[in-house]
Amino acid sequence: MTVLVNGERGNGIDPSDRGLQFGDGVFETLRLDAGCPVLWERHWARLCRGLEGLGIPQPREQDCLDDLRAVAGSSLALAKLIVTRGPGPRGYAVPERVHPTRIAMGGGPLAIPDAGQILRLGICGTRAGRSPLPGCKHLNRLENVLARREWGADWDEGLMLDGYGNASCATQSNVFILDGRCLLTPPVDEFGVAGTRRGWLLEHAARAGLLVQEATLPLDRVLAAEAIFLSNSRMGLRRALLVGQRDSVAGDGPASAALAMVFELGAELNALV
Amino acid sequence: MTVLVNGERGNGIDPSDRGLQFGDGVFETLRLDAGCPVLWERHWARLCRGLEGLGIPQPREQDCLDDLRAVAGSSLALAKLIVTRGPGPRGYAVPERVHPTRIAMGGGPLAIPDAGQILRLGICGTRAGRSPLPGCKHLNRLENVLARREWGADWDEGLMLDGYGNASCATQSNVFILDGRCLLTPPVDEFGVAGTRRGWLLEHAARAGLLVQEATLPLDRVLAAEAIFLSNSRMGLRRALLVGQRDSVAGDGPASAALAMVFELGAELNALV
Repeated sequence: MTVLVNGERGNGIDPSDRGLQFGDGVFETLRLDAGCPVLWERHWARLCRGLEGLGIPQPREQDCLDDLRAVAGSSLALAKLIVTRGPGPRGYAVPERVHPTRIAMGGGPLAIPDAGQILRLGICGTRAGRSPLPGCKHLNRLENVLARREWGADWDEGLMLDGYGNASCATQSNVFILDGRCLLTPPVDEFGVAGTRRGWLLEHAARAGLLVQEATLPLDRVLAAEAIFLSNSRMGLRRALLVGQRDSVAGDGPASAALAMVFELGAELNALV
Repeated sequence: MTVLVNGERGNGIDPSDRGLQFGDGVFETLRLDAGCPVLWERHWARLCRGLEGLGIPQPREQDCLDDLRAVAGSSLALAKLIVTRGPGPRGYAVPERVHPTRIAMGGGPLAIPDAGQILRLGICGTRAGRSPLPGCKHLNRLENVLARREWGADWDEGLMLDGYGNASCATQSNVFILDGRCLLTPPVDEFGVAGTRRGWLLEHAARAGLLVQEATLPLDRVLAAEAIFLSNSRMGLRRALLVGQRDSVAGDGPASAALAMVFELGAELNALV
């Protein structure tokens, strides 16, 4: 894995960096195609929203793009971009002069499940807490770490509920259920992250004759759903089944037709460069 | 400030350290007296509880004590001890072999407010979220950072409410209100941190003829309280007044007598070595 810290190789992080001290920063996980981040505008917009929410000056966009190109190890690669508030003295108070730290890491192999593979989704006991920075990808990710530790040996992902017991997200992806010709996904104004692929789906579903809408999803509704989907920047849009449940979509029923439309939409999303 | 990473000076942190990536670790802020941490048993117990909750192997206690002694800059000093899960590959999954990172930093000047000084306490809009590791001091501290950014120019601390609108804690201390001869403090089973001084006060208040008890504290009750106190490892136990409120404790009433008892208790706490 190649790592750049403020554009340079081989640098360690200052132990006083507020990213380490407090999780005071944001990050993006990006799919790179020939060194170019897919859906960059969405990643950049979310990164900037998070930085603005925290009051951290934003880095130069071109520096981020240059870093990502430099860490891209293969034609199709996954990379992570982190921006923290940089080093500071003891205590929570933000220093008068902030020198943000920019970290780019990438080049690991990009393992994408086959489009036809149905992911096995378990249910985690760890709840998603109210986000201090709703919708953004901040560095306070202990809940995800704890939920990830709950995965059973036969799980590909873990569903996380919010404080009200409604589905919020999965440990590293957004969740959707199929309802007729509508894909329903939990809102992200309190819990969870506004995924870039989720955003794309909300805007482009109509092309495939589908509608994607935000809806509160009690666990019962997820348990009874005809089909479940997960999305993130690594794998795009993939179908999932709850562990222990059987695929109930019949051969040629309306659910089967809707499912085919979702797969078509997913194929379009997954082919974006 | 002197910094030791795994016992050595001058080391940077591996950018892949999970403390930076996810806030995957815990910390303690300690008052050192001639190189020895005050109330060490309580700090160590809480650190170990947090590590156990996260499934991070605990470091050798003696290594931590040696580090703290080495970073103590003056006879009375403040230090911070961080233990993270150490470096890892991409993703939330915990690596099979964990090599925790131990960081000790200290030596900054220890600014303790005068015992008689009444701290000015503002009320923050940032809420304390449900802790993923109740009572422990984990590295996910964005809420504290955001609340600290709200401090007005005339604030010494900021009160944080929980999701129910009850007082939870202050940005860097525990909160108490005086009720007769009882000091009431919010429980820490969902929100906030189980402070070492808070723990000591719960156990030792009887010595001064007082009782310290956990109680849910709606904001109204804090607003109406005869007296408010704050505690942490840096300043011990200090009195606070809400910004804009006037000291209502009369000269020789029962409240005044109780106040004197709290100051006596605080003096005992602050003198611990």
